Amino acid sequence: MANHRCLRKLSSSLFIILAVFILATMLVADEGMYPLSEVPRLNLKEKGLRIDPALIYDPAKNSLLYAVVQIGATGSFISEDGLIITNHHVAFGAVQSVSSPEKDYLKNGFLARNRAEEIPVPGRTARITESFRDVSAEVLSVVKPNMTGAERARAIEQQIKKIVAEAEKANPGKRAEVAEMFPGKSYWLFIYTDLKDLRLVYVPPLSIGNFGGEDDNWMWPRHTGDFTLMRAYVAPDGKPAEYSEKNVPFKPRTYLRVNPAGVKEGDFVFLLGYPARTYRHLPASYLAFEQNIRMPAVADWYEWQIRLMEEMGKTSREIALKHDARIKSLANTMKNYRGKLVGLKRLDFLTQKRQEEKALQEFIQRDPKRQKVYGQLLPELEKIYAEMSAEFPRAFVLDNLRRSVILFQNAITVVEAAHERQKPDLERNAAYMDRNFKQTRQRLALTLKSSFYLPTDVAIFKELLKRALALPDDKKIEALSKLSAGGSNLDEAVDSVFKSTRMADPEFINSLWDKKPEEIKRVDDSLIRLALALYPEYQKLEEINKARKGQLDELQARLVDVRQEFLGKQFIPDANGTLRLTYGRVEGYKPRDAVYYKPFTTVHGIAEKTTGQPPYDTPEKLLQLIKERRFGKFINPALNTISVCLLYSTDTTGGNSGSPIIDAEGRLVGINFDRVWEATINDYAWSHKFSRSIGVDIRYVLWVLKEFAGANHLLREMGVE
Amino acid sequence: MANHRCLRKLSSSLFIILAVFILATMLVADEGMYPLSEVPRLNLKEKGLRIDPALIYDPAKNSLLYAVVQIGATGSFISEDGLIITNHHVAFGAVQSVSSPEKDYLKNGFLARNRAEEIPVPGRTARITESFRDVSAEVLSVVKPNMTGAERARAIEQQIKKIVAEAEKANPGKRAEVAEMFPGKSYWLFIYTDLKDLRLVYVPPLSIGNFGGEDDNWMWPRHTGDFTLMRAYVAPDGKPAEYSEKNVPFKPRTYLRVNPAGVKEGDFVFLLGYPARTYRHLPASYLAFEQNIRMPAVADWYEWQIRLMEEMGKTSREIALKHDARIKSLANTMKNYRGKLVGLKRLDFLTQKRQEEKALQEFIQRDPKRQKVYGQLLPELEKIYAEMSAEFPRAFVLDNLRRSVILFQNAITVVEAAHERQKPDLERNAAYMDRNFKQTRQRLALTLKSSFYLPTDVAIFKELLKRALALPDDKKIEALSKLSAGGSNLDEAVDSVFKSTRMADPEFINSLWDKKPEEIKRVDDSLIRLALALYPEYQKLEEINKARKGQLDELQARLVDVRQEFLGKQFIPDANGTLRLTYGRVEGYKPRDAVYYKPFTTVHGIAEKTTGQPPYDTPEKLLQLIKERRFGKFINPALNTISVCLLYSTDTTGGNSGSPIIDAEGRLVGINFDRVWEATINDYAWSHKFSRSIGVDIRYVLWVLKEFAGANHLLREMGVE
Repeated sequence: MANHRCLRKLSSSLFIILAVFILATMLVADEGMYPLSEVPRLNLKEKGLRIDPALIYDPAKNSLLYAVVQIGATGSFISEDGLIITNHHVAFGAVQSVSSPEKDYLKNGFLARNRAEEIPVPGRTARITESFRDVSAEVLSVVKPNMTGAERARAIEQQIKKIVAEAEKANPGKRAEVAEMFPGKSYWLFIYTDLKDLRLVYVPPLSIGNFGGEDDNWMWPRHTGDFTLMRAYVAPDGKPAEYSEKNVPFKPRTYLRVNPAGVKEGDFVFLLGYPARTYRHLPASYLAFEQNIRMPAVADWYEWQIRLMEEMGKTSREIALKHDARIKSLANTMKNYRGKLVGLKRLDFLTQKRQEEKALQEFIQRDPKRQKVYGQLLPELEKIYAEMSAEFPRAFVLDNLRRSVILFQNAITVVEAAHERQKPDLERNAAYMDRNFKQTRQRLALTLKSSFYLPTDVAIFKELLKRALALPDDKKIEALSKLSAGGSNLDEAVDSVFKSTRMADPEFINSLWDKKPEEIKRVDDSLIRLALALYPEYQKLEEINKARKGQLDELQARLVDVRQEFLGKQFIPDANGTLRLTYGRVEGYKPRDAVYYKPFTTVHGIAEKTTGQPPYDTPEKLLQLIKERRFGKFINPALNTISVCLLYSTDTTGGNSGSPIIDAEGRLVGINFDRVWEATINDYAWSHKFSRSIGVDIRYVLWVLKEFAGANHLLREMGVE
Repeated sequence: MANHRCLRKLSSSLFIILAVFILATMLVADEGMYPLSEVPRLNLKEKGLRIDPALIYDPAKNSLLYAVVQIGATGSFISEDGLIITNHHVAFGAVQSVSSPEKDYLKNGFLARNRAEEIPVPGRTARITESFRDVSAEVLSVVKPNMTGAERARAIEQQIKKIVAEAEKANPGKRAEVAEMFPGKSYWLFIYTDLKDLRLVYVPPLSIGNFGGEDDNWMWPRHTGDFTLMRAYVAPDGKPAEYSEKNVPFKPRTYLRVNPAGVKEGDFVFLLGYPARTYRHLPASYLAFEQNIRMPAVADWYEWQIRLMEEMGKTSREIALKHDARIKSLANTMKNYRGKLVGLKRLDFLTQKRQEEKALQEFIQRDPKRQKVYGQLLPELEKIYAEMSAEFPRAFVLDNLRRSVILFQNAITVVEAAHERQKPDLERNAAYMDRNFKQTRQRLALTLKSSFYLPTDVAIFKELLKRALALPDDKKIEALSKLSAGGSNLDEAVDSVFKSTRMADPEFINSLWDKKPEEIKRVDDSLIRLALALYPEYQKLEEINKARKGQLDELQARLVDVRQEFLGKQFIPDANGTLRLTYGRVEGYKPRDAVYYKPFTTVHGIAEKTTGQPPYDTPEKLLQLIKERRFGKFINPALNTISVCLLYSTDTTGGNSGSPIIDAEGRLVGINFDRVWEATINDYAWSHKFSRSIGVDIRYVLWVLKEFAGANHLLREMGVE
């Protein structure tokens, strides 16, 4: 027995050591989304790259950098005539916006047999990164000691707007943007070209492009042909321009060569793309807020909306079409959050993070100087997230009212515009600055046209109103409480609001854009009136958020400093929607005990999953091709069949959708479109054990184009036939 | 284009050839449940066995055959003192019957620290196969040409009863049973010893023994410690006897030696057990009936009952305990059927079977003599199953009324007994023959005691009544229609029936067993009255079933003959609850595209799955043992941890639960308890591709006994400590 007890103690210590080791592994391996300026330092040749890294990133040359576009998420040029390949799900909204029950390109797919048949998709842009440089010193030069959080945030915001305005003056026709690399600490100026005339070239039917639907989303094994081809057009002079019949295909500085032989298990690959957001350098208090407050609430709310919209869509295909893209987007986030919540719990990641911070705090307190500078850092962060938790339910209603009720979104935008447009351009909220205002209006018009359905709007409004009325007395939102005041029936009150508004009339909305605040006050429209009544609430919320951002940025900047000192390493900035490179290998993984996921799926898996019912309703023609083994030259020789999707150990997140998967020779071998379920928590930490991205194999793309779609002209354009 | 078309034709033929090949593979490999008399012909030494096959089956010696018992499903002796190992789920009902909210052995588990603490479980038996011989000639000698189906069935039934009676007279204290090996064709007489005093020795807590519950049932990867230890007792003179304090542990002729080193991937293993039913030699028309009519209806009905019982159980643990075993059994069948339905559809097995029969029919028609004997065989079978389909909804109500409504089951049994007991013993239905009647009564009493809950009974009755009333006019069941006649409220009518019955009173029921039909008619009890009114319906149904069995047996016997001629091979009889051997190897499989299932799970998978909520609420102590890696001598050296469950390519079905997994040296290395989801269709055809059985690794059993339960005395008894 004595022996046993000793052994137990020893094992118990071993366990702690093991846990710390796992934690350390995660922390060491937590970064892989490199800004392109890091490329020369990555020793990619040693990792498996067989071309000169300068061919990927050298601003002076036609490097691969210029083949990649931001197009909602990511896309890339694959011909000298501006042919772009991206994901079906990235182009989903664009396809929906030009679909109708009669011409249901979303459901049936679309192939332009020639360039004249290509379908313009208004309001969509493809953005090319032209250059970037560090402007941290310029940005932070305006920060004075003893500024409040709000002052600090406002000063930085103004300074950034100034830098952007100057950069756009110096680069006519380009867009400039300053990105926070480390909030409060490091800022880069990016110069972009925005191509504004995009057209659909090939869209697979939904039963290929979205095979497996929400069931399979975030899952392996996967069999989704998640790709779409578009083409960028420019004015005859080569300059970006809105759609015109006279426009000509864009000639990119460079484009990706397609490798019809694909990759095999173990091969080196890398991705270029525009990953949106990761949160690896944020404190445990942030993670606790996300895990315990925000993500569960949002996931539940999105699930509620999805159920509502699915119910609405049962009436007719036309009404379903109005909701398809919204449902897809809500479901995507919901499932991602659910995956994260499961993953966070399973790895007990919050405890790990808290343990690291405990050690960090000890490190801080060991040195009196450090203690003085950083001693209050973590407690202060904790305090801010506690405040955010307390205010969450109220802010949630206000946020989602303008985010999810389309007609109210129109009204509040009109009211804000009236106020903001009175200010000097640089002092306005970004959406109302001259350089953005047109796009703001276009986006509203597009949403109204493609996604608005009155009963859905009304139902969401009612639900949010119910939540508003349930807030504690000191958090009530007066303008909303008034709606059902005097004991009137809530349903009737909302119905009457929606009966007395013209916010579904694009002409009417257009007539309001140039009005002054006094004029807006005289407009006889129930939702405008509500928006006017809520406008001070939104302003207050914005002020609070701005002040909080000022505080958080300053604290988080210092957190990065002291953690770098503590861990003895330099961090890579979190993803922030700017161009990044990530590399890895084609490899499977072990999702759970006794299960191994291989890195390639095959067309036989499509046949296996097919039930005839969406989302498993494979076209008969595709099933026939599989049965008859008409695989032709795009066969995967290692598997003796067509491979459909593949796994690889790169570091990706939302925004990497559509990223080209590039082989060691710099050729296109697939299109990234998802991560596995276990990797949804990637946004907090990367791990070689479970972080796998999912792409569609270029051989499946080519096979579908050739055998299923008969699009030989596109294969010729890509140089593979 | 022309070239393409040629290629397509060629591929299309290739596809047909492939399909036929797959079909052929399934048909060739469709049998692996060998009667022990086949053992000498199996060349097991070549397959990997390292002991003399005679040590498995030699009636003259103490071969392994005598170590195996039928105990609901299967179990085996693992000590000279009658210690039996079987599955937790096999002993589930027994454990439930001695559990109460105060002594919840089902939930908390149970360990007898010595023999005095072992808990008797009344009404359970362990059966040993003593011998068997072919009695086909004797049985079939009574069949005369031109007998109707019913006459034929009755004649065979009578003859079997006679053979059994003679055999039991010749073997005092033994049970005799004649099993149909090939119905209508081949019959074997088995002589059994039934041990009647069984006691619980060790039951793991539900959270180990049923870890994963219905979620994981029929699934891999699996982490269920599905084992339980019991002990058989006999009278001091060594003869089988009901429980008595004076009884002593049974000394089996032989028992299995435990191999604490277990097996590794690729190792040869074999199982002995009592597989209940397979249907591999039945026609496509049978399969169509199962697939389209019976299984979907039963699965839906069981699902309805499960939901009802779960709802009822929410009130209290006591009420939940009443339903636990029923739910487990219903859920098990439901999930099995759902799995079969998916598998049948996925493999399009019915089409394959129809194709084979088309070829068979052509084979029959090619020869005029064959045509004459067998020409109408398949059409006649088709006709019978069509009739069964038409009558199904009516028979379904009658069947399930007596099967699922416990109080009605009591009533109809009383009524039937009164009639049957008037007949000479050999002419009675088996349940009412002298040799069985006591057990029949015991079984009812046990069910009433452990599973009866009035609201559940009433709810099931109401649902079945609703279905009865919905039958078409020409199928109505008069006695049930009358219940709600006169426009009275259905609910009230049923409630009043249940208020005027004493069928929940065991004393009252006991007082009715010896009554004559006239006396029963005078009993003032609503359910007895209903049973009397329905009795003629049940008699009619039985007559129809008997006639149909006579026809089917004769047709199916000829189908086996002609198929054996057609395929040029001898068949092994379908499983029929008699002792069989099956062999295979420890190996994983590919359940679907890009996924590989390894053949061993580990304790780390338990930690992975644990949520703290049932069925994933692992005891804290077990989690600690895993965390601290206190694996000791039962570690799996290939995995450097404790393996929990394993996969192997044997041919098993329901009834094989609890079968010993035996290694090449004849030692116990695990306990079989399930098949994988893909292998639920095993009952129609076995395939090396997906037919895998699931067992609990003996090393996990030993580790739990030692480290978790501290049952060193049991390890010593097994000779492993």
